[in-house]
Amino acid sequence: MENPDAAHLRKVEVCLSPALFPVYYSNKNCVVVVIDVFRATSAIVTAFDNGIKEIIPVSSIEEAKEYKEKGYFVGAERKGEIIEGFDFGNSPFSYMQDQLKGQTVVLTTTNGTKALNRAKAADRVIVGSFLNLTAVINYLREQKKDVLLLCAGWRDRFNMEDTLFAGAVVEGLIEDPLFGNLADSATASMHLYQVAKDDLNEYLKNTSHRRRLARLNLEKDIAYCLQRDISSNVPELVGNALTVK
Amino acid sequence: MENPDAAHLRKVEVCLSPALFPVYYSNKNCVVVVIDVFRATSAIVTAFDNGIKEIIPVSSIEEAKEYKEKGYFVGAERKGEIIEGFDFGNSPFSYMQDQLKGQTVVLTTTNGTKALNRAKAADRVIVGSFLNLTAVINYLREQKKDVLLLCAGWRDRFNMEDTLFAGAVVEGLIEDPLFGNLADSATASMHLYQVAKDDLNEYLKNTSHRRRLARLNLEKDIAYCLQRDISSNVPELVGNALTVK
Repeated sequence: MENPDAAHLRKVEVCLSPALFPVYYSNKNCVVVVIDVFRATSAIVTAFDNGIKEIIPVSSIEEAKEYKEKGYFVGAERKGEIIEGFDFGNSPFSYMQDQLKGQTVVLTTTNGTKALNRAKAADRVIVGSFLNLTAVINYLREQKKDVLLLCAGWRDRFNMEDTLFAGAVVEGLIEDPLFGNLADSATASMHLYQVAKDDLNEYLKNTSHRRRLARLNLEKDIAYCLQRDISSNVPELVGNALTVK
Repeated sequence: MENPDAAHLRKVEVCLSPALFPVYYSNKNCVVVVIDVFRATSAIVTAFDNGIKEIIPVSSIEEAKEYKEKGYFVGAERKGEIIEGFDFGNSPFSYMQDQLKGQTVVLTTTNGTKALNRAKAADRVIVGSFLNLTAVINYLREQKKDVLLLCAGWRDRFNMEDTLFAGAVVEGLIEDPLFGNLADSATASMHLYQVAKDDLNEYLKNTSHRRRLARLNLEKDIAYCLQRDISSNVPELVGNALTVK
């Protein structure tokens, strides 16, 4: 393994809210990892696991409606629930249907798709979730660029599950000394992950979005989204659509 | 101790960057604690420990200059250093001079005074640092209002030392069950503090602002600012000036 001098270390930062993206994003030549564990980025990874061709993330319900009128399959979620008139929301289980294989799907969610669209300026934008944790780490280690982990949060607030995932990525990255320039946000996220990682579900029991989803009877979704490394897909934003190689 | 039902619990949140203040501040009837451990809020607490009458925080160097021309003592710091032409910067040691006793001091710093001015909309705004940790906790427990811990950060980015202090306050608050409604940001800050608290100085060794100050030979300031509970002063913003009772 190479042992680069300090000046050539890659910077690893965590942007804990999409509202801070303009503060952190000063470097076009970095990889942005968009994170919305409950549930947009977990659903996106699951969609590709199940053979969906591409996903077009849109920020507004109006845009989603326009695609729906053109005949697309459209997922639309706000505050944890499916919006009336759309095909599904952001439950990973909705993306396992046979009829979606090979199709283009349009998706709008409370936090995740907005974060994706905010990140578009970057050189490379990928999607991370616990489901494809190691695949994301391997992708970043191959790219050898600065890394900005963008937590979708909850309505621009900090949330725990996205931060824990960011910390899991940091823990994996620093095994390579090239990724030795950790911002405080990266160190903090990693240390939180280390507190939580032996039992993520238990650690998250009292967090806000976890409680919100439990009230909506989404325990099965939560358990699904907290599985680590069941996917090797790394969805990447190319133009306006997410695809996998 | 009272044991209130869930609906009456006070909300405790941590705003990890001043740029997020508009996202978190929706509740005029809360106490905002402004935190800039290295070094503005530590210096402010120290100033009152040493008999300064009041401190006027200003955001810009231009405002600071106007006060200077009027004959005020004026502290001005940017990027860790004293700005030429001013009396001092934000080292706590600068505020221990006899000539400042009973005086009004004007202060502008890179992060802390901007956070103070951003917080002005709130019902009550106080200043926290490790130096007055328990005094701040006691003040908040007496007020029995929602609590918003506002980290000054570093140029709108997350920083470690302010987050750790926020976590220390959360740890103290939850001994009273009234403060049982923790946002994820509060839980995360508390858990980080619990990782770090046995040796704050060691934990902070590799953090960004700590390194920045060490390069400026400010080790003595760092050690001073990391002392817990040497002050019982809780500076409060009343109008445009900080004072203590």
